[in-house]
Amino acid sequence: MNPPTRADVLAAAQRLAGVARRTPVLTSRTLDQLTGSQVFLKAESFQRGGAFKFRGAYHAIASLTPAQRAAGVVAFSSGNHAQAVALAGQLLGAPVTVFMPTDAPAAKVAATQGYGARIHWYDRQREDRAALAAAYARETGATLIPPFDHPAIIAGQGTVALELLEEVPDLDVLLVPVGGGGLIAGCLLVASEHAPRPAVFGVEPMAADDTARSLRAGRRVRIPPPETIADGLRPTEPGELTFPILQRFAAGILTVSEEAIREAVRVLLLRLKVLVEPSGAVGVAALLAGLVPAGQRVGVVLSGGNADPLHLAAILRAEAPP
Amino acid sequence: MNPPTRADVLAAAQRLAGVARRTPVLTSRTLDQLTGSQVFLKAESFQRGGAFKFRGAYHAIASLTPAQRAAGVVAFSSGNHAQAVALAGQLLGAPVTVFMPTDAPAAKVAATQGYGARIHWYDRQREDRAALAAAYARETGATLIPPFDHPAIIAGQGTVALELLEEVPDLDVLLVPVGGGGLIAGCLLVASEHAPRPAVFGVEPMAADDTARSLRAGRRVRIPPPETIADGLRPTEPGELTFPILQRFAAGILTVSEEAIREAVRVLLLRLKVLVEPSGAVGVAALLAGLVPAGQRVGVVLSGGNADPLHLAAILRAEAPP
Repeated sequence: MNPPTRADVLAAAQRLAGVARRTPVLTSRTLDQLTGSQVFLKAESFQRGGAFKFRGAYHAIASLTPAQRAAGVVAFSSGNHAQAVALAGQLLGAPVTVFMPTDAPAAKVAATQGYGARIHWYDRQREDRAALAAAYARETGATLIPPFDHPAIIAGQGTVALELLEEVPDLDVLLVPVGGGGLIAGCLLVASEHAPRPAVFGVEPMAADDTARSLRAGRRVRIPPPETIADGLRPTEPGELTFPILQRFAAGILTVSEEAIREAVRVLLLRLKVLVEPSGAVGVAALLAGLVPAGQRVGVVLSGGNADPLHLAAILRAEAPP
Repeated sequence: MNPPTRADVLAAAQRLAGVARRTPVLTSRTLDQLTGSQVFLKAESFQRGGAFKFRGAYHAIASLTPAQRAAGVVAFSSGNHAQAVALAGQLLGAPVTVFMPTDAPAAKVAATQGYGARIHWYDRQREDRAALAAAYARETGATLIPPFDHPAIIAGQGTVALELLEEVPDLDVLLVPVGGGGLIAGCLLVASEHAPRPAVFGVEPMAADDTARSLRAGRRVRIPPPETIADGLRPTEPGELTFPILQRFAAGILTVSEEAIREAVRVLLLRLKVLVEPSGAVGVAALLAGLVPAGQRVGVVLSGGNADPLHLAAILRAEAPP
């Protein structure tokens, strides 16, 4: 597959106009005081399906032929991509099957089913979800919609940066959560051609630092399945398509502790009054942890808001997660 | 004191321009589906200080002479009014003293102190906070900023409806939380002269239905200190100034159960991704409970977002509050 370009992001933006929500850019005196920077939060937690994932999923399914859509689509996901494919499939008339891990957050399972998708379960520690979904696609004729390593997915996610830079054109820094790298790859395609060009940093949990390790090694490094509260950032290696884009354009990777992620969720919720899931809060975690020099104009992608209620309750009680 | 008018609300709006946040009006496909109405949420949870109370407090303190401000202001409040007076006093250079109940939510106490106010404690079940604050004002020369029963407070709060009706001019219904009645009185002054005129309903907890009882009785009825999770709606009787405005202009009072309030907080948080405190969620509770006929355009004031973390954790676990 050809690597996507900024032109693909612009095409995705046209397809998503009037379908994806143009999410608000939030500012907060409180957060500016706490971080010493001027912070602009692109709140994809308010996106349809509760996360940026809808952008890529809708764009990918809309790019299929009518016959392909009628044959259905299949996805594997611990959560937000599942919801996104389910919702996009429902809107576009494509039957959806999703492979989900048995330990997926209950709220995400319920939402995925609520959008009419059929769920197949797998064991995250022992089964290869990509292989399961690929086999299913071969057997049924359904099209696989991968979570990040696909040009249409990357192009769709890039519309997040497109909108943010339209609204705040003069960012010094942009912080983007990194799981498999679809979101940051799309954002990099946009930001690298934007003037003035912001320094784009990926942010990942210390416990799931496959991308940081890969950039240091100069090649894709696979880590064992990580344990982190940021369930959306658990992919074990960067994508084949996404990694070269990060290598070429990213300013670096910041890694944050589990406690810093929980604190970011608490601050966003209790001070800014917005619910952001742990995976979506890593950018704010990096800021609160002092990983970005103060005094800059910093864009942060809050990538999603689909927090599990019991995890959230534990965070509020300052407990270890259940 | 002369009862306030719509002209006073317009004057308050001028004073608050550039100081109070013009809060967003949120819409949600999910909420529209759940309620069968078209719902417009005026999110005062994003107001400075975390609640609409900042509007009235700032307007009231800004209306004082420089000498009065220098002598300080005093307030009594279970929470949001305290924060609002503390923040407004800080911005306007007036020293602030607040009488707070010993069982006030910890987050509200911390925020009030964070804005530089001095706190005096009282026992909500046994002491008369209004009398304590009035005595303090007499002794020190400070000006009492009452939580609701004051023309400048009512006029300030009315700017909530002014902004909402500017943005959504054709509401059929407007739902407003009722504690002492300052917010709804201000909103009624605006809505009663707006064309087309929306039907404005107050919403209060069943456990704190002093206003519903008062309207039925045709006079202000005092109830014992109520136990409700909606800590901002605990005043035991309508105000002297606010009640006649409700009698004249309100379409009625809807009352909601404690469980309906908790469910509204859950839906707003987990589905819409916004944190609204129980007092601020009663309007959505009324909608979810089916108290408003479907198919209408319904404005709802989400009055604040300063939820106590432990109460919130209990709501998320679907437990009784701690």
